[in-house]
Amino acid sequence: MTKKRILISFIIFALSATLMAADHPSMFITKEEAQAINNALGKYPILDQSFEKMKNMVDAALAKPMEVPQPGEAGGYEHERHKQNYRAMQAAGILFTITGDEKYAAFIRDMLLKYADMYPNLGPHPMAKKQAPGMLFHQMLNETVWLTYTSQAYDCIYDWLDQSTRENIEENVFQVIIDWFIERNHHEFDRIHNHGTWSVCSIGLIGYVLGNQDLVDMALYGTKKDGSGGFLKQLDLLFSPDGYYMEGPYYVRYALRPFFHFAEAIHRNQPELKIYEYRDQILKKAYYSAVQTTFPNGVFPPINDASRTMDIRAPGIVLGNALVFDHYGADVNLLGLAKIQKEVVLNRSGLKLARAYAERDNIPDSDWGSIEFTDGHDGEQGGLGILRMGTGEDQTMLLMKYGVHGEGHGHFDKLHFILYDHGNEVIPDYGFCRWINIEPKFGGRYLPENDSYAKQTIAHNTVVVDRITQNKSNRKRADKVAGKRHFFDGSGENVKIMSARADDYYPGVKMQRTMLLVKDDRMEYPTVIDIYRLESEESHTYDFPVHFRGQLITTNFDYQTNVSVQKQVGDDFGYQHIWEEATASTDETLKFTWLDGHHYYSLVQEVSPETEIIFGRTGANDPNFNLRSEPMIIIRDDAQDKVFASVFEVHGYFDEASEKSMNARGSITDVNVIGSNAEATVIEVMGNDDIYWRICVNNAGASDSKENVVKFGGETFKWTGNYKVDLNVE
Amino acid sequence: MTKKRILISFIIFALSATLMAADHPSMFITKEEAQAINNALGKYPILDQSFEKMKNMVDAALAKPMEVPQPGEAGGYEHERHKQNYRAMQAAGILFTITGDEKYAAFIRDMLLKYADMYPNLGPHPMAKKQAPGMLFHQMLNETVWLTYTSQAYDCIYDWLDQSTRENIEENVFQVIIDWFIERNHHEFDRIHNHGTWSVCSIGLIGYVLGNQDLVDMALYGTKKDGSGGFLKQLDLLFSPDGYYMEGPYYVRYALRPFFHFAEAIHRNQPELKIYEYRDQILKKAYYSAVQTTFPNGVFPPINDASRTMDIRAPGIVLGNALVFDHYGADVNLLGLAKIQKEVVLNRSGLKLARAYAERDNIPDSDWGSIEFTDGHDGEQGGLGILRMGTGEDQTMLLMKYGVHGEGHGHFDKLHFILYDHGNEVIPDYGFCRWINIEPKFGGRYLPENDSYAKQTIAHNTVVVDRITQNKSNRKRADKVAGKRHFFDGSGENVKIMSARADDYYPGVKMQRTMLLVKDDRMEYPTVIDIYRLESEESHTYDFPVHFRGQLITTNFDYQTNVSVQKQVGDDFGYQHIWEEATASTDETLKFTWLDGHHYYSLVQEVSPETEIIFGRTGANDPNFNLRSEPMIIIRDDAQDKVFASVFEVHGYFDEASEKSMNARGSITDVNVIGSNAEATVIEVMGNDDIYWRICVNNAGASDSKENVVKFGGETFKWTGNYKVDLNVE
Repeated sequence: MTKKRILISFIIFALSATLMAADHPSMFITKEEAQAINNALGKYPILDQSFEKMKNMVDAALAKPMEVPQPGEAGGYEHERHKQNYRAMQAAGILFTITGDEKYAAFIRDMLLKYADMYPNLGPHPMAKKQAPGMLFHQMLNETVWLTYTSQAYDCIYDWLDQSTRENIEENVFQVIIDWFIERNHHEFDRIHNHGTWSVCSIGLIGYVLGNQDLVDMALYGTKKDGSGGFLKQLDLLFSPDGYYMEGPYYVRYALRPFFHFAEAIHRNQPELKIYEYRDQILKKAYYSAVQTTFPNGVFPPINDASRTMDIRAPGIVLGNALVFDHYGADVNLLGLAKIQKEVVLNRSGLKLARAYAERDNIPDSDWGSIEFTDGHDGEQGGLGILRMGTGEDQTMLLMKYGVHGEGHGHFDKLHFILYDHGNEVIPDYGFCRWINIEPKFGGRYLPENDSYAKQTIAHNTVVVDRITQNKSNRKRADKVAGKRHFFDGSGENVKIMSARADDYYPGVKMQRTMLLVKDDRMEYPTVIDIYRLESEESHTYDFPVHFRGQLITTNFDYQTNVSVQKQVGDDFGYQHIWEEATASTDETLKFTWLDGHHYYSLVQEVSPETEIIFGRTGANDPNFNLRSEPMIIIRDDAQDKVFASVFEVHGYFDEASEKSMNARGSITDVNVIGSNAEATVIEVMGNDDIYWRICVNNAGASDSKENVVKFGGETFKWTGNYKVDLNVE
Repeated sequence: MTKKRILISFIIFALSATLMAADHPSMFITKEEAQAINNALGKYPILDQSFEKMKNMVDAALAKPMEVPQPGEAGGYEHERHKQNYRAMQAAGILFTITGDEKYAAFIRDMLLKYADMYPNLGPHPMAKKQAPGMLFHQMLNETVWLTYTSQAYDCIYDWLDQSTRENIEENVFQVIIDWFIERNHHEFDRIHNHGTWSVCSIGLIGYVLGNQDLVDMALYGTKKDGSGGFLKQLDLLFSPDGYYMEGPYYVRYALRPFFHFAEAIHRNQPELKIYEYRDQILKKAYYSAVQTTFPNGVFPPINDASRTMDIRAPGIVLGNALVFDHYGADVNLLGLAKIQKEVVLNRSGLKLARAYAERDNIPDSDWGSIEFTDGHDGEQGGLGILRMGTGEDQTMLLMKYGVHGEGHGHFDKLHFILYDHGNEVIPDYGFCRWINIEPKFGGRYLPENDSYAKQTIAHNTVVVDRITQNKSNRKRADKVAGKRHFFDGSGENVKIMSARADDYYPGVKMQRTMLLVKDDRMEYPTVIDIYRLESEESHTYDFPVHFRGQLITTNFDYQTNVSVQKQVGDDFGYQHIWEEATASTDETLKFTWLDGHHYYSLVQEVSPETEIIFGRTGANDPNFNLRSEPMIIIRDDAQDKVFASVFEVHGYFDEASEKSMNARGSITDVNVIGSNAEATVIEVMGNDDIYWRICVNNAGASDSKENVVKFGGETFKWTGNYKVDLNVE
């Protein structure tokens, strides 16, 4: 730490001395790169498509009257207008550089002059809410994006402008914004958070463009220029050593944009900083850990506040893909991403990627395998585990979340899991409750139901104790604790396994979840095994929720449907948003089968006598129809120590159009806990075709070499290491 | 009629005399055609794909142990097994003919010998319900399909078999089935219904194969051989003169299969019957009218009992496409269908289609334009109107239903409409309530909720009077009446219109619905205008339901949501299946906006003071979770005469992945009825950008030349013909 400070001080000293007037453009593309792209057009399809797309967008903007309206409400017309303006200016700058066509330069100049007329008269946005206000936009965040893009556009026409126009724009636009960010909102600027990243990126870029190294240094090291804030500190603290981003995949695709835009500008203007090497190539790790979490269709798993459809075509990922390919090596997996993205950025890196893509006959789907990420900047705060079997659309993917809370966008969902199978998020995460950018829906902002439902534990696939959300739904408390890794082994061909704990989420209750993906030739598809173990000193009510989509097909127990009147399931912690559709009680291994897409899914779970079952559906206490209507099943048991031992079986096939249905009932018939204690858990699974599996899991200190011996019900079980799975029990 | 009888008698006489032993095979493919296909393999991709698909299917069947199980329950394993068996046998027959590989012939022989062991010991299926029983299957229908396919398979190996094997199979399989159909179930055989078509097709085919002209004649003219039943009678009565099939598109795709299989066998074995010319080329019309109803993605509109996903890849449509292309001319629109189907049948016709497809560089999307079909065998029982603007995925398609009830599979839905836009069924038909072939869902059969909800008027987008279903939900009564065509004009570029009546559906209430598709350059997309006029001698409660999908975005009126308790909306006629989510009352033009896919949709409707509004969702009184959970809005007014004047506007764009939202509120602000009486209705529509439209509709006798003069509120409106639409009112 001290060593690093010294290094930083040295760098600051070394660089502040040299006030370099940058070449223009030099943030993202140079004249030489533009020439190379110009020469390459017509050769590489993905480059051509990207160029055409950009040109169509900008030409359409040029064809319409230019509008620089007074600030308006979030998600409203003016808000959108200013967003479109910065996108169009940035793209016009690149097109001007590539084509030399002055209409693009004139467009940027004219628009900036309109902004120059307006900016000095703006103050804090009148509709700012809790967050730091912008001037054009209700929140400063949007304004930092505006400046990031506009700096790049300005960079591209800098040499083309005359001196007096430059002076006008710099005084009446850029200096006003710089003052706003640095003077008035330095707290936001120095914040270790994605808002801070955008802030430092935008100021760093405009600093380079204006040749103002002072601004660049503040961007790199914080307003105090001591390394307590700024870009490097963010690289230190916002990612785990594996590159996992603390807010999760949805936010990282947004955060990666300023990280890469600024990194690329640093690389080009201060190569001696070796930014791409910083923190053991943390930018590479950040990029890979983002894309390695994605479902096979390129969509980011919607953990924490996240939309359910954000995918790798997001601009930050398209940007990162080319830069990572260029700076860290030509990985074929990145070409697999480009196959989904169908787009490259227009600079040297994008050209390189497009060329490599065109030169290969057959681009395989990206294959990320099974992987675990540690969480927390020190890598000591739990993690995220992903098990995969199969490739492409046939892949079965199981994700478990056991890391940090993730601050303001975090959900109270420790030990929550998602099952993705055959192209669908079969056991889903609800995602955020927000109709993003849809102005009539509360300005497109987060909705009240995001707090009251989407963040609550019951909205996830993890146990709720006493119908209360983890950490009592207190974010500050949740940010102080983290899940704990127990063990992870994704290396087996037929068995992949992960186990984690969450002990600080309910007073006096310790939780451990062990999840497996198992392949058995007698089964059609990989099977999920789930062992959720709770230990407590007192008795509690444990709710085991499973969210699903599609249609209930059958159960092996009777239930009573609420046919003419429906009530909410509970009063708080998200339960108030669930309609009670039906209830049941059962004493025997339960089986619950539903249909999703072309496949059937069955939950088979061992139950205690008189286990209660609730069939729920979201939508209660939703006065403005903000929630989606989605089904779930909740299995409720009163107990002190408890093991929920479950199998999630994928089976059969249904196609309505061809009217085919096969194996709608599935094979697994029984799950039993043979024994469980603080040392180990042993369960068995039975099914048709003489399926008889036994799973032994080590619950105490993880070790690959530990000799485990446990005795349950008179039988002794022995194994070495963290687990033993026998798929052919005699 | 008399003339036709004489003709038929003559034909019977002429043909029964000649007992021809058919060449083998001759039902569907000959040795010469097989040779031509063999030579063509590797040349035409769609032929190769079809051959490969068939070969993979059969080779997979050959690789498994052969199973001919005892009969089982509908949708169960044995049921599916026998279906797979006949599919595999038919395909094996074609493969044997094409490749000469005897393993395929041996497969058919061995399987038929297993059936020969079993059939004589079978009686009526033990689990038969209301319908005529089969022996292998719970209903005879499935057995007729079995025989249709198996006859073709047998045809292909007939010459290859030795005499004693033939005798065994014919005595112990075919003769048993023939007796069952002809002797025991002649009522089903002679029925003018798709079950009857399958029956006569199967008997006709086996008749030809066995050289038994007596059977063929019964298939053609009914068991009495007098033309009172049989294939020709079915061609006379089951289609309107336009070729529209009385049960609707979902059933026609099933019915077309036996129609074409038998027609092709007749054509090949009794060409003198000129079957493809019969009834002014009714088979051509039947095929075209089926595919012309489809949505741009090839899915059949789910009117009446229908699944929501049945599309033109159904086997009967793939079969018809090649035969129609071959016998009626090489229409490029049929190549457009082949683009979606990606498959041809393997005979001369399929080869021809595949060759034509391969020879064309660019296959355009099929373009069906706007079209009206008359309904009833005489074409005098109303019809089905379809208006279209745009092509391919951008198409807006409006369908209105005003024909016959359609017997047992008909829904009580006169004047119901469907809006398909941008690739989605935006204002949908619920379709049937059935999880087809999913055995745990009531054997995959129709569910009780099909009668109690899906067939009821409230499940559709048409007015419900006094909360009672049309014709009091009495099918026999509904079969006696029909909608009435008023006028249809799909020829205009900017205005397309259709108008129809339903006067016999509620005692004392006359209904007329006029629907338009309108294109105005100030609007982003085509707009739907809807004028639903009710005349009555007494006051009634009129419910105007609109079913939608996706998410409610905004309304211009306040509503009260039932937040913690939800009740069913009504007690019967389908209302018992609707949860009341919210209620409202409004005095002013209502606007209701929702999101579906990438677009926003707004209903704008003039309302009377104190109009009630109910937000509903299906799912109440659904003890077994048989219904899908889907939203609707019901606008309720008490009145004597009433005009519901509405606009359905398509607007804006939303993409969650790219977080873009535009124009979520739409342009249309007002709809007013200027005046309405038995002569005419005049309405006006207002919106942003000075949109001011006036629509004048003739309500009395339709005529293109009639001079209309009406006076409403002191203003006189004049126009010639059925309507006048002015999109630029001064």
